[in-house]
Amino acid sequence: MTAPSLDERIAALDAADPLAPFRERFALPDGVIYLDGNSLGALPRQTAARVNAVMAEEWGTGLIRSWNSADWIGAPRRVGGKIARLIGAKSHEVVVADSTSVNLFKLIVAALQAQPARRVVLSEPGNFPTDLYMVESALRTLGGDRRLQLAPREQLLAQITDDTALVLLTHVHYKTAERYDMAEITAAAHAKGALVLWDLSHSVGAVPLELNAARADFAVGCGYKFLNGGPGAPAFLYVAERHHDRVQSPLGGWMGHARPFAFVDQYEVGAGIDRFLCGTPPVLAVAALESGVDLHLEVPMAQVEAKSRALAALFMELVAVRCHGFGVELVGPAAGAPRGSHVSFRHPEGYAVMQALIARGVIGDFRAPDIMRFGLTPLYLRFADIAAAVDVLAEILRTEAWRAPEYQVRQAVT
Amino acid sequence: MTAPSLDERIAALDAADPLAPFRERFALPDGVIYLDGNSLGALPRQTAARVNAVMAEEWGTGLIRSWNSADWIGAPRRVGGKIARLIGAKSHEVVVADSTSVNLFKLIVAALQAQPARRVVLSEPGNFPTDLYMVESALRTLGGDRRLQLAPREQLLAQITDDTALVLLTHVHYKTAERYDMAEITAAAHAKGALVLWDLSHSVGAVPLELNAARADFAVGCGYKFLNGGPGAPAFLYVAERHHDRVQSPLGGWMGHARPFAFVDQYEVGAGIDRFLCGTPPVLAVAALESGVDLHLEVPMAQVEAKSRALAALFMELVAVRCHGFGVELVGPAAGAPRGSHVSFRHPEGYAVMQALIARGVIGDFRAPDIMRFGLTPLYLRFADIAAAVDVLAEILRTEAWRAPEYQVRQAVT
Repeated sequence: MTAPSLDERIAALDAADPLAPFRERFALPDGVIYLDGNSLGALPRQTAARVNAVMAEEWGTGLIRSWNSADWIGAPRRVGGKIARLIGAKSHEVVVADSTSVNLFKLIVAALQAQPARRVVLSEPGNFPTDLYMVESALRTLGGDRRLQLAPREQLLAQITDDTALVLLTHVHYKTAERYDMAEITAAAHAKGALVLWDLSHSVGAVPLELNAARADFAVGCGYKFLNGGPGAPAFLYVAERHHDRVQSPLGGWMGHARPFAFVDQYEVGAGIDRFLCGTPPVLAVAALESGVDLHLEVPMAQVEAKSRALAALFMELVAVRCHGFGVELVGPAAGAPRGSHVSFRHPEGYAVMQALIARGVIGDFRAPDIMRFGLTPLYLRFADIAAAVDVLAEILRTEAWRAPEYQVRQAVT
Repeated sequence: MTAPSLDERIAALDAADPLAPFRERFALPDGVIYLDGNSLGALPRQTAARVNAVMAEEWGTGLIRSWNSADWIGAPRRVGGKIARLIGAKSHEVVVADSTSVNLFKLIVAALQAQPARRVVLSEPGNFPTDLYMVESALRTLGGDRRLQLAPREQLLAQITDDTALVLLTHVHYKTAERYDMAEITAAAHAKGALVLWDLSHSVGAVPLELNAARADFAVGCGYKFLNGGPGAPAFLYVAERHHDRVQSPLGGWMGHARPFAFVDQYEVGAGIDRFLCGTPPVLAVAALESGVDLHLEVPMAQVEAKSRALAALFMELVAVRCHGFGVELVGPAAGAPRGSHVSFRHPEGYAVMQALIARGVIGDFRAPDIMRFGLTPLYLRFADIAAAVDVLAEILRTEAWRAPEYQVRQAVT
């Protein structure tokens, strides 16, 4: 009896994949292998129908009445409650609102103001930039002698002191896919009296999350990556129930008011998570996000993670074999280690190589200075797609097709 | 020769209306007279097609490539530039972003930080609540001895002193439709060295605006009222070119960075109006807003204002005649005075009367404690609609139909 060929192995993996039927739930273009769902998730087929119904029936026919009759007013909490099921939180601990950046600002300021005697926000260099920028924004606005301290992840725990107000970390690193142990870091921070704010943008919908079990304090997350909520989808935020009465948003708009329709001059902080709402919710965008979340709620997260790990293992194995000697270097966790649902490789000409891949229908993305990043989305990728993508990559490297001048031209968004 | 009957007058008004063809551009439900376009504008027919194209072609097929190929990355400035034409601003002075509340926070903090020696934000009691709440938010976050001062509008100019950092006013009052003279107030503030932030939420698309001519410093505005951008549409903000280099947003997220795709750890403030962007733009929602703005750009604002005034004059005339003796009292400017594009009446049972109107297909809204508010949207209302609406109102008052128990029940959004 001979060992199965690679083609046979891949065919067997796809045949045994319990998530295979979900691919048909997405509108994917022909001729494309989409490995960028970690940056922008694909379009669920049901989303177009859902957004159309909101436009035609709720907006067009219901008009202003839909704030009540279609529960637009409850949408931030309703969709937040659904996301709570994906992240191991209670439904009243999560709300959909604003962008990830704005939500970071709310929670950074809230955490700092709740602990006025502590001065430091601790994060890591190379965290997703907007996380660090929003710390800068918060410190610039609050004034005083608070500061941002950056420590490499291997030194992070040692840097938490009784002056640390907040540890701000992205659970899965946007470039490397490294994954923090949320429970371990949170416990270490709590042991020093510090709070932790987790950015779940590259985790939610990609890996299992148990915020309550990890005793997480605060979190934010992105709606347009693995949740497939649409380009620029609204973000969400989580505040542990035990903090609800002791923190306040710096953006206390009318939707966070205890009685928004009393139209009184003075702000009265809303109950529970509602206080982290600010302006009028973006109804069309929330509907698209809800559709993506609904789709995710049909899938056991354990199956998602198992397939993600299998896709990553195959990708790494095939690159190691087929791209050997062409200067491609794995970045981030080795096979088998905890990781997020993307895989990255360094190459000195990573930008041009990625443009050559995209020109051939293999869509990943590039992150400066030299990272080629590939999103592995278990809901709509097949193992055969991974093999085909690595074939194209190997061919580009072997023929040096990336040297073509058109692949050197930088675009607005890279 | 006899005077024309009322019916003849109204028919003549509709026959002579140059904006009459625009009604067909909206998807309006049968059996409804919609007098709440000042709260949520109606659905332009072209918007459903536009949003569908963005979903199917740009998101579904283009996927991540659409940030460049469909210019998603430029959408906040592109749509901002179109709104600039409606408000008398330069295209690079306006950007679409976030909600009105969040944009208020950005500009209040920016204005205060640009004038550290001045401590007072001056506004009026009864301003739209979120305007005052965001001042409270800004002051709470900035700390120090700055304060909010409220002065009735007849005392407002006298209260501007050399301690006034910012005058924050809503150009058209959300309840009364009173309209400030933007040039006069701005000049008076400038004479004392103060800056002015105008909330245009109830003005944009409703009345002509000339921000540059009035030397306006800052402005925010709402996308979902007279611009018909969809429920919870993104808002916009305006910063006069002369301030671009001297103000900074307190919400400096990655989209406001000088080089967002360099992914560096330190924030570098973006050029010009870009610095007031924060997170990833909500592409679907911006597309719906752009569709509404495009429709408005087809219409001369002078025609919009002329019809708005004529609709208001007819409404007031008919209410005075037909509702006389039932306790209905006009609120806000008398006929002929400067006003916005809605008209409000006080009635002790205003809530129940409005519910009775809505039950009969005449949709206005209620604003506590006793205001019935009717939006007059020249793009999709006929003079005959006004007459029919007042007929229904008069009948409800004459028969006291509002006494029915079902009209007393308060809903989530009133």
